[in-house]
Amino acid sequence: MTYCVGMRIDKGLVLMSDTRTSAGVDNFSITRKMFTWAIPGERKITILTAGNLATTQAMISLLEERSKLTEDRDPSILRQPTMFQVARLVGETLKEVIAGSSPNGQTSSDTFRASAILGGQIEGGKPTIFMIYPEGNFIEITSDTPFFQIGETKYGKPILVRAYDPEMSFEDAVKLLLVSFDSTVKSNLSVGLPFDIEIYETDSLSAGRTVRIEKDDPVYLTISNGWGDALKNAFQDLPNYEF
Amino acid sequence: MTYCVGMRIDKGLVLMSDTRTSAGVDNFSITRKMFTWAIPGERKITILTAGNLATTQAMISLLEERSKLTEDRDPSILRQPTMFQVARLVGETLKEVIAGSSPNGQTSSDTFRASAILGGQIEGGKPTIFMIYPEGNFIEITSDTPFFQIGETKYGKPILVRAYDPEMSFEDAVKLLLVSFDSTVKSNLSVGLPFDIEIYETDSLSAGRTVRIEKDDPVYLTISNGWGDALKNAFQDLPNYEF
Repeated sequence: MTYCVGMRIDKGLVLMSDTRTSAGVDNFSITRKMFTWAIPGERKITILTAGNLATTQAMISLLEERSKLTEDRDPSILRQPTMFQVARLVGETLKEVIAGSSPNGQTSSDTFRASAILGGQIEGGKPTIFMIYPEGNFIEITSDTPFFQIGETKYGKPILVRAYDPEMSFEDAVKLLLVSFDSTVKSNLSVGLPFDIEIYETDSLSAGRTVRIEKDDPVYLTISNGWGDALKNAFQDLPNYEF
Repeated sequence: MTYCVGMRIDKGLVLMSDTRTSAGVDNFSITRKMFTWAIPGERKITILTAGNLATTQAMISLLEERSKLTEDRDPSILRQPTMFQVARLVGETLKEVIAGSSPNGQTSSDTFRASAILGGQIEGGKPTIFMIYPEGNFIEITSDTPFFQIGETKYGKPILVRAYDPEMSFEDAVKLLLVSFDSTVKSNLSVGLPFDIEIYETDSLSAGRTVRIEKDDPVYLTISNGWGDALKNAFQDLPNYEF
């Protein structure tokens, strides 16, 4: 499994991914699932991936190669005029990779399935986030649905639903995602540290600030350990149900 | 889907279930999933059910009939000497019902599958809780695993993991379960109000206190609405992650 979140707040985008990949609980390793491309002053594109690792690595490699080799530069995500066109290209590439691996083409229970979150901004457009399905189609974030999750989405969702606020600071957004990821890690062995986080400020049009949070990171440990106590205090604010 | 939790605290047992049953999102209704038997001074048994409704209703009806008709009274859950033997009987009954509906016997993806949580106490034993699988086998609660969930278990788990405390009061345990259920209701349409709650005090050996919480219950609404604010306050107690 995997856990990735792309979230939009008024100040910009916050993207976060775990790094655990596994083929059974007896075979797991650390793999980066966050990939960033930037042309300073023009565009910033980040992709988070979940699903079959061979599929997502092939997709990223194809996107990467096509952004570098001159002869194969169209279509390239660095040439598309809008984020919508980038999403189409990523979706097509993902679909192409899956179809190349599957003996019967795509089916919903396909071993080779994968999905992606695409976040970024291109000059002239707004910062936005897409969720891209293995069939190559995609949906875009709205103010009603200000974040997308892929992978093990359930454990970490309630806190996002409750505490998200479009006006929150980047610091609070990162804290919120850390709590969401920590809740997931505590419940699903297939999601694990380190975490990768990227913060992208609206209209900066350059690679955002990134950080990798290791499992012994002191701030993460304080948040992880402190959240239980903070929740217990939060209970005190709620009324008792009298029978 | 469904959401049921059986939790043991030092003071006794707290059991809670939702009431939504559905065959697709366009066909849903309210059905009780909590069933209680008691012989005052001797035993108290409660079963929570999840899964195929025809299966769980047939299982409860068989257990119910066998506890009433004299000629068919053995095996009866009201005659078993221990909770372990009750769990065996419930498991056997569940397995029997599923096998009767399935054309190929049991398979893991069977349409007719169901599971149950069994909680109670029999004179001479301690209050305990079992989770019973469709195969008829079961596991018992321990101090390391002080609660069982069935149905849509993921959304409501993180709060249970974080805030559970064996020394908590019944009021706090109910509040905790209300928050866990509320988080689930907010994320999965197949879990819905009203909720049934039963509180069983250790060694009381009689039917516990029960309450049905309707969707316009003022205390529930205060907890549901207040939890978001309480969480936001809880965030203030956590340190910021500085980049």
